[in-house]
Formats: sequence, structure tokens, C-alpha cells
Amino acid sequence: MPSQEQLKKYADVLLRVGLNIQSGQPLVINAPIETAPFVRILTERAYVAGASRVSIHWHDALTERVQLQMESEENLQHVPRWFIARADEVMEENSASLHIAADNPDVFKDVPPQRLSLRQRAIGEKLRHINQKFMEDEITWLVASMPTADWAKKMYSELPTDEAIEKLWDTIFTVMRMNAEDPILAWQTHLNGLKQRAAFLNEKHFAKLHYTAPGTDLWITLPETHRWQAADSVNAQGTTFTANLPTEEVYTLPYKYGVEGTVVSTMPLSHNGVIIENIQLRFEGGRIVEYHASRGEETLKEIIELDDGSHYLGEVALVPISSPIYQLQQLFYNTLFDENASCHLAIGKAYPTCLTNGKGKSEQELIDMGVNDSLNHVDFMIGSDQLNIDGVTQDNQIVPLFQNGEWVI
Amino acid sequence: MPSQEQLKKYADVLLRVGLNIQSGQPLVINAPIETAPFVRILTERAYVAGASRVSIHWHDALTERVQLQMESEENLQHVPRWFIARADEVMEENSASLHIAADNPDVFKDVPPQRLSLRQRAIGEKLRHINQKFMEDEITWLVASMPTADWAKKMYSELPTDEAIEKLWDTIFTVMRMNAEDPILAWQTHLNGLKQRAAFLNEKHFAKLHYTAPGTDLWITLPETHRWQAADSVNAQGTTFTANLPTEEVYTLPYKYGVEGTVVSTMPLSHNGVIIENIQLRFEGGRIVEYHASRGEETLKEIIELDDGSHYLGEVALVPISSPIYQLQQLFYNTLFDENASCHLAIGKAYPTCLTNGKGKSEQELIDMGVNDSLNHVDFMIGSDQLNIDGVTQDNQIVPLFQNGEWVI
Repeated sequence: MPSQEQLKKYADVLLRVGLNIQSGQPLVINAPIETAPFVRILTERAYVAGASRVSIHWHDALTERVQLQMESEENLQHVPRWFIARADEVMEENSASLHIAADNPDVFKDVPPQRLSLRQRAIGEKLRHINQKFMEDEITWLVASMPTADWAKKMYSELPTDEAIEKLWDTIFTVMRMNAEDPILAWQTHLNGLKQRAAFLNEKHFAKLHYTAPGTDLWITLPETHRWQAADSVNAQGTTFTANLPTEEVYTLPYKYGVEGTVVSTMPLSHNGVIIENIQLRFEGGRIVEYHASRGEETLKEIIELDDGSHYLGEVALVPISSPIYQLQQLFYNTLFDENASCHLAIGKAYPTCLTNGKGKSEQELIDMGVNDSLNHVDFMIGSDQLNIDGVTQDNQIVPLFQNGEWVI
Repeated sequence: MPSQEQLKKYADVLLRVGLNIQSGQPLVINAPIETAPFVRILTERAYVAGASRVSIHWHDALTERVQLQMESEENLQHVPRWFIARADEVMEENSASLHIAADNPDVFKDVPPQRLSLRQRAIGEKLRHINQKFMEDEITWLVASMPTADWAKKMYSELPTDEAIEKLWDTIFTVMRMNAEDPILAWQTHLNGLKQRAAFLNEKHFAKLHYTAPGTDLWITLPETHRWQAADSVNAQGTTFTANLPTEEVYTLPYKYGVEGTVVSTMPLSHNGVIIENIQLRFEGGRIVEYHASRGEETLKEIIELDDGSHYLGEVALVPISSPIYQLQQLFYNTLFDENASCHLAIGKAYPTCLTNGKGKSEQELIDMGVNDSLNHVDFMIGSDQLNIDGVTQDNQIVPLFQNGEWVI
């Protein structure tokens, strides 16, 4: 276990580099109950950083599993009014919102995927307006993590629980640059590097990307007003923040109807406790017209068939194999880490902030601009040391961007 | 630790004897996060017993302590709208409500009592209409308990934590009659005994009670329409339930302005982490006109000076020294157990259900009937093997009720 001093430093990285919390701003922390020891430190450090109020919205996936297994289908779809009112109130108060993603990745593996989808769709529909606001960066938000016992055991099953937790702390601290002399400075330097990549790509203003790798031959058209982003989110008050820590990606959105060809995943996708391996997708006019997986295909089906938008892509992200997470060659079973291991795509909803003119548009306006909408947003990894990506400029020049999985710009 | 089977039985006692949960009824559990392993079992058993939905409202006193220590006084008094909306929704749906009282009794001992009062008063005022409904038994509710580590260590400081928890489970299972062949039957038998005492007292319809013990000489006038109650609560739908488990008491309310004389406490009162010992109160016309404590007097002052109603009594409860909790001669630092050790009184709000015509009355009507109102309801113990209580009938006959701490009827 990290010392109290190290945990305070970690909390400070999340609060200052991630949320960039402002004096007098309320903070809401969504956390699994097992993370309470760190949440108490986070709470204290948030007040030190100037937060006015800190509220914790606890959840326990093991109790939720009982509910998912035993409630009627009708009750599974019941979303209390107060739950929506709470999310609305967080928005209204311009709270910073910190989500700790640390649940046991296997916790729902015995729940029938249809029952999970039923519940997630019901919540997703009731919170659609809230999720939209998150994706438009109306308020400051951050997804971060810390070890929990079952998750650590999942990653390091050969170790006793205590040692597995210890090892996961070490791993997270490594990828979170906590071993640097000054972790906050190390993050600022790293984020500046990502922003420079994004600036280069924005300057080039590519029309298309072309991905090639074994099994992959994919063309992605980018919208006319697309914008590459990297750790430079700005909320409605103009405060900059970093929405994921760690982050290694430069990302934008595809033109919804402009994806053609085939792509295969290179790393397993852990979704609701199910591992999906060797995903193969074929696209026509942006739509997934064929899909297979060598493992977990039923769950892949649940993802793709959730709604119409889950047949289209919502994100294109570039991550080199020099990413410290890729270098570990370790599946985290946690999207926050896994998506930062390698180049990835997301099935489902696109971030309107990836358009220069995307913020504040109505749902219909976004659809008309080719911005995909869905209750899902599921990242899957396609990067490897065999991946090449070319950019195609507006005047049909080819600019190599990635060779053998690494930036060449 | 009890086995899974024993925990299921314990859950069933709470759900069936306590809440008498009905088929299709929602259940809300308010629980400290440390109690999660038992809450998961409770959740499962609630579905088995017919609950439609089970929602858990978690809290963590250690995070709340950070808030209490670090928030501005203004923010301490902020109560989110969703928090009230949630309570309203629970009422509207006729949910059963289970509160697990298991927090470390010392958790707030370093928080200035004024700051605690500030927060509790703010919440109490916003939830006044909800608390009123609880006290009128509009919905089914239950306070029950289970061990948590810090509480167990507080009670058995000489033991290592694991053994202290084990011993507290043993103790709770003893007083919860879980070692009986059939705990549900044992509870039904015990509750019937309490109800017979209540029926006797209701038949006598005493005008006054007279308490005598070393330091105590107290006269309590009972309202004309008072009703003695014992484990026979009835909610707005007509479903019977038992609001506290364990329960050993027969109780009613005093006439607000009809308490005269002096009383001393016989067991320590644990309140917000502070131990208050040797409370001495003097009453005139129902009002506390003088108070002392040999320890914790500042906290006693916070209790009595909270509002006007906290200068008056709201409950009169009779518990014999044969109570299994009294027999343990062990302070639990937890009102649920401590109040069931001995005869007690409560400073503050009275239960309108203790009047035959009390339900559904407005606040003003209740005040006019001499029913005390306050944001507080704090029980303190006055029973011992030296306590005698006489009932005085409407025609001034003296009927001995307690001699040397034991029922004589």
C-alpha cells in the first residue's frame, strides 16, 4: 500500500491535473464502497484545494448484482426520480465530478447480458440529457482509478490478495507517473506532448485515415469540422481539465457514414465481466454490417444491437505502442487503462466536443452533421506493432502517421 | 462470524418480524458502507420475501467527519434538494425502510458539538415532514444493527479487532434471540408478552407515574388520550410492524407540561461520540429548568438547548432489569441496544402514535394536545435495581408497577 503521503500526492494529481478544481467549487465523487479509504483522503485534499462541498455517491456492484439477478424485468427498468434529480443538481451547481472506475471487472459475468442491457438502457435513456452534457464538457469531469481486491486478484490471480493489491497499486502508480520527482510537473510535460500531436493533426486537417494491419484494411472519413483533442477539455465556465487519468490518446470523431472496410481487435475487450476476443468488424457506409468474435460474441452482439447508433463508430483515438500501458503488456480489464494501451475505436456515441462547432447543438443538428448518437460508447483496441496509419489530406496527399504502431510525425 | 446460514436467518428476522415486508413492496436500506457483506444478504432475502425493488442508501461516517471538520458553516447547512426528494419518493412508494445503526460511536468525538448541531439542525428542518411521517408510522420502518470494526473495538477494547467483532456478533445474536430453536417464534412469544403489559397499562389508564430511586423523585402526568405501545406499530396501509429490533420496552408519551421533580441517569449516554454520565435534570411544568452531568455536560447542553422542544420530554419507556440487555451489564454506545437495557425517558420529540387520536393531526393540533415537538429525540437511561414506579389512577389509587427495577404486575 502507498503511504498516506503518497496517497495525498495521488489525490492532488487527480484534483489539480485532472479536475483543476476551482476555489469554491463543489465536488461530487462517484465511488465503489471498497475505495472508501482513498475517498476519505480525496475528500480532505479537495477541501484543501478549495472545494466548497464534497459529496460522495457510493455504489456497491455486489449488491447491484443481486438486484440484476432477482428483480423483475419491469423493476429492472425503474429509475427513481431522485436519481435523475441528483444528476441535474450536480449539473446546475457546476460541480466537478470524479468517477472512480475500480469495480471488479467480473462482477456481472453471471448476469444474463439481456438483463444488464435492459437496465443500462433504462438508465441511459433517463440520463441521456446528463450524459450529453458530460460529453459536451458542460461541467468538469474525471475518470480515475485505484485498486480494489477482486479487480487486483483478476489481474494477478497467481498472487495472494494483499500482494495483488500491492502490485496493482505499483502498476497504477507507474502508469500514473507517481514515481516522478514531481508528478504534477511530469503530467504537465506529458500532456503538452499530446497537445502538440493534436495541434499537428488539426493543422493538417486530414480528410481520411487509412488503417492497415493483419486483418485490418479500414478507411475512416473525418468530418469537415473535426478537431483532434488531447487532454484539453474546457468546461462551460472556460476552465480547462483532463477528463481521464491516465491519458495517452489523441482522439477525434469519424463521420458517421464514412467508415469502410474491415478491422480486427488486437487486445481483449472486457465488458460487463465478459472477455471479448478477436473482434472482426466489416463496415459499409459507416454501419457495422458483419461482426464476429472468437470469444464473447453474445456480448458483442448486445453491444452492437443495443440501438441504431451502436452500429456506428463514435471515436477514433491514436495511442503509440510506446505508451507505458502498452509496454506493460497487461490487460487491466478496465477501459480507463486498456484504451490508453493502444490505438482504438469506439462503438456508439461520439463526443460533440470533437467538432469545432459541436457544442450546444441540438441532438438533431448533431445527427445532421454526422455525429453518431447511441446509449453506448464502447472502446476496443486495434493497435499493435504491425499497425500502420496514413493520413489522407484534402488534396489526396498521403502522410504516414503511424508505422509499426509508433508515431512517425 | 456467523455462518451464511445464520446471517440469512438474522436477515429473515429483520424482514419478517421487524418490517413484515409485503409482497410487491419496495425496500430501502440505509446502511454504513462497512455493513455491505450483510446488506447483500439482506437484499437477497428481501427479494425472496417478496420485495419488488431493494435500494441501498450508503453512508460513510468517516467521510462525513472530514466534511464536518472542513466545510464552512454555510456549507455545513446546505442540504441538497435531491436528498429531500429521495426521502419524499420513499414515502410516496410506501417503501419499507430499514436503518442499520452500526456506526462507530466515537466517530464524531473530535468534531465541535456546535458544528454537528448546525448540520443536524439543518437536515432535521428540511426533513421535518419526513421525520413526522416516520413518527406517525406512515410507512413501515425498522432500526436494527450488526457489528462494525470500530464499534466492536470500542466495546471490547481488550480484544484484537477480529475477536472483538466475533464477540459483538455473539452478543447481538444473544439479545436478538438468534440462538433459539426458531428465532421468529421466540420473537413472536416475546412481543406478545410486551403487548400484554401494554394492554394492562392501557386498561388502567393511569393519570400519572411516580418514579423514586436514589436522586430521583419524578412525577409524570400522562395525556388523557395516551396509549402504551409495544412492538405493535401499524402503517398507513394497516400492516403491523416492529420498529426496533431488539425491543424490550413498553412506552408512551408524557403530557408536555406535566413533568415535575428530579431524575438522575443510571447508565452513561453515548451521543455523537461523547459519553454523558450522571445526568441530573430538574423539571418544572414539564420544562427542564436545571441540568448537570458529571461528564459530557457540554454535549448535554447541546442536546437540551437545540430548540425549545428539547427542554421537554417526549417519551416514557418501561423496561425491566430482567431485560437480556440489562443482564449483560454492558454499555453498547448505541441507543438501539442501550435504551432496551432499562427504563428510560427521551428528551425531545414525542411519537404522535402514542395518542389514541394522534395520527394525522397537524403540528399545531399536536402542540395543543401537549405533544412535544423538537428536532431532537434523545433517550437516556434511568432504570436500576433501586427504581420503583407507581401508577396513579384517575381516582388517585396507587398501583405499584415496578419494584427494585422489575415489573410487579
